[in-house]
Amino acid sequence: MTLTVALDLAAVFVFALTGALTASRAQLDIVGFIFIAALTAVGGGTLRDLFLGRVPVFWVVDPIYIGVIAVGALLVFVTAHLLESRYRAILWLDAAALAVAVPAGVNVAITLNHGPAVVVMMGIVTGCFGGLMRDVVCNEVPLVLRKGELYVTAAFAGGIAAALALYLGQSGPLALLICAGVTFLLRSGSMLFGWSLPAYKSRPPRDGPRG
Amino acid sequence: MTLTVALDLAAVFVFALTGALTASRAQLDIVGFIFIAALTAVGGGTLRDLFLGRVPVFWVVDPIYIGVIAVGALLVFVTAHLLESRYRAILWLDAAALAVAVPAGVNVAITLNHGPAVVVMMGIVTGCFGGLMRDVVCNEVPLVLRKGELYVTAAFAGGIAAALALYLGQSGPLALLICAGVTFLLRSGSMLFGWSLPAYKSRPPRDGPRG
Amino acid sequence: MTLTVALDLAAVFVFALTGALTASRAQLDIVGFIFIAALTAVGGGTLRDLFLGRVPVFWVVDPIYIGVIAVGALLVFVTAHLLESRYRAILWLDAAALAVAVPAGVNVAITLNHGPAVVVMMGIVTGCFGGLMRDVVCNEVPLVLRKGELYVTAAFAGGIAAALALYLGQSGPLALLICAGVTFLLRSGSMLFGWSLPAYKSRPPRDGPRG
Repeated sequence: MTLTVALDLAAVFVFALTGALTASRAQLDIVGFIFIAALTAVGGGTLRDLFLGRVPVFWVVDPIYIGVIAVGALLVFVTAHLLESRYRAILWLDAAALAVAVPAGVNVAITLNHGPAVVVMMGIVTGCFGGLMRDVVCNEVPLVLRKGELYVTAAFAGGIAAALALYLGQSGPLALLICAGVTFLLRSGSMLFGWSLPAYKSRPPRDGPRG
Repeated sequence: MTLTVALDLAAVFVFALTGALTASRAQLDIVGFIFIAALTAVGGGTLRDLFLGRVPVFWVVDPIYIGVIAVGALLVFVTAHLLESRYRAILWLDAAALAVAVPAGVNVAITLNHGPAVVVMMGIVTGCFGGLMRDVVCNEVPLVLRKGELYVTAAFAGGIAAALALYLGQSGPLALLICAGVTFLLRSGSMLFGWSLPAYKSRPPRDGPRG
Repeated sequence: MTLTVALDLAAVFVFALTGALTASRAQLDIVGFIFIAALTAVGGGTLRDLFLGRVPVFWVVDPIYIGVIAVGALLVFVTAHLLESRYRAILWLDAAALAVAVPAGVNVAITLNHGPAVVVMMGIVTGCFGGLMRDVVCNEVPLVLRKGELYVTAAFAGGIAAALALYLGQSGPLALLICAGVTFLLRSGSMLFGWSLPAYKSRPPRDGPRG
């Protein structure tokens, strides 16, 4: 099993858990769990593959990902009632999935010999878009847009760290490990200690009509 | 006209009607009708083509689909006021479109010699994503996620039925007919008789913030 | 710099401004500004490239677009408080971006020798989908669907005008200029003078459940 496949599998499994937990909040049935789990789990990597022209996309080439998603969704379906707070579980699993998906995206871009800008972008796309689709489809406030938190910023910093490590001559696997570490550190630090960047402030926050 | 084109045309036309009816609920003008009709009608098949690397996508290769969509949208624009309930019309036309679009997706995957897992996935993608885009863009509750109904499940069962029929040595056209029948039977049975899978239940249904 | 690149760059920059202004209404941080600006700025052109099979997509081939987006987002982050109404600024910048993005899409389709139907569709896709994604993700009422306004219609008319000008033997650059003019004229006339097409009217506007 190549590093690319291992990273994609891990990101897919953990994102699938967050999708299934979100499906539980919407009280869907088991097929609904699998559907939302799949959307979340392969959404980011699918966009990455499409943007890079890497088709058929990864889960068409190797359908094992679909099996992994189904297992994750089933697991949540039968155990979610044991959780004290499903929302907190979503937050932390999502952070873990982000920290695997960003290096998964970075790694694919590196393998295809893209430059640092595309490497960083593919980390962000792979990490952030699955969760964004999950939240838009299930009508949740997108985690990616929550005020006073680092999310895209964590993915961005992870991508920059990987690009920098490679530039400084580190090996690919070490760069990906640094990428995962920086991403998780910033995301979890934001959740635990309120680390954030200054947000745009205005009064009133919105003028004009509102959706 | 090949079977692939015939199935795509039929699915496109009926989905276009549901899109135009949804546009009528949002009181759009005729171009808005065509826009939402097009999004609904080609959304699922476009994703299928992209995921499989079948580009340019089907409606770029043969723009007749655009004409079919425009005709469907015009038809709804001038006749929708005759309907007693536009919502009930959307539900039933959507069920019919699903029952044609799932075999349309299945058929393309078979033609490209994909295995059963991809065949089933392409049935689901082609059947479910056009309506999902329609509902997200128009801010309707997605039909695909309605509690206590079979929707993705109907598409899933239709895809499985087709894969099984092929495996048992049936001809392609018969497998697609069985696929359409199973999909429509489950979807309409769910609407008429409340057939459903057990949904995830919890108290409270959601903890944490809500979108 | 080719005409294609110049048009894409201009559309990307102005759409990025509207995305960043929408991010300011949601009180995001600077990375959130860049994220929404990027989604808005490259959303339509990315779909165009995917539908036409023109991969890797334009901003992967030439990452200068990412730089342009970051500059636009920063500019808005530090100057948006000077605006009297950010909402009005979004409306007018969006109209300007539409009037550049439609000819950008038309131009790519012409360059690839597609027929008039695909030319018009690619103008609409490139012009309308970036703003639509921005509004869906940020939970704003999509500009593209606002009642009593011309939006998709303006893009459609611009595409038709370009196709007609080419058919009548005009040069490519002149056809694109006419396309931009027609699009902006209709969109701005709609905003200033209430130009509109008759909308579908019914009583009640919706029956059945509502999202």
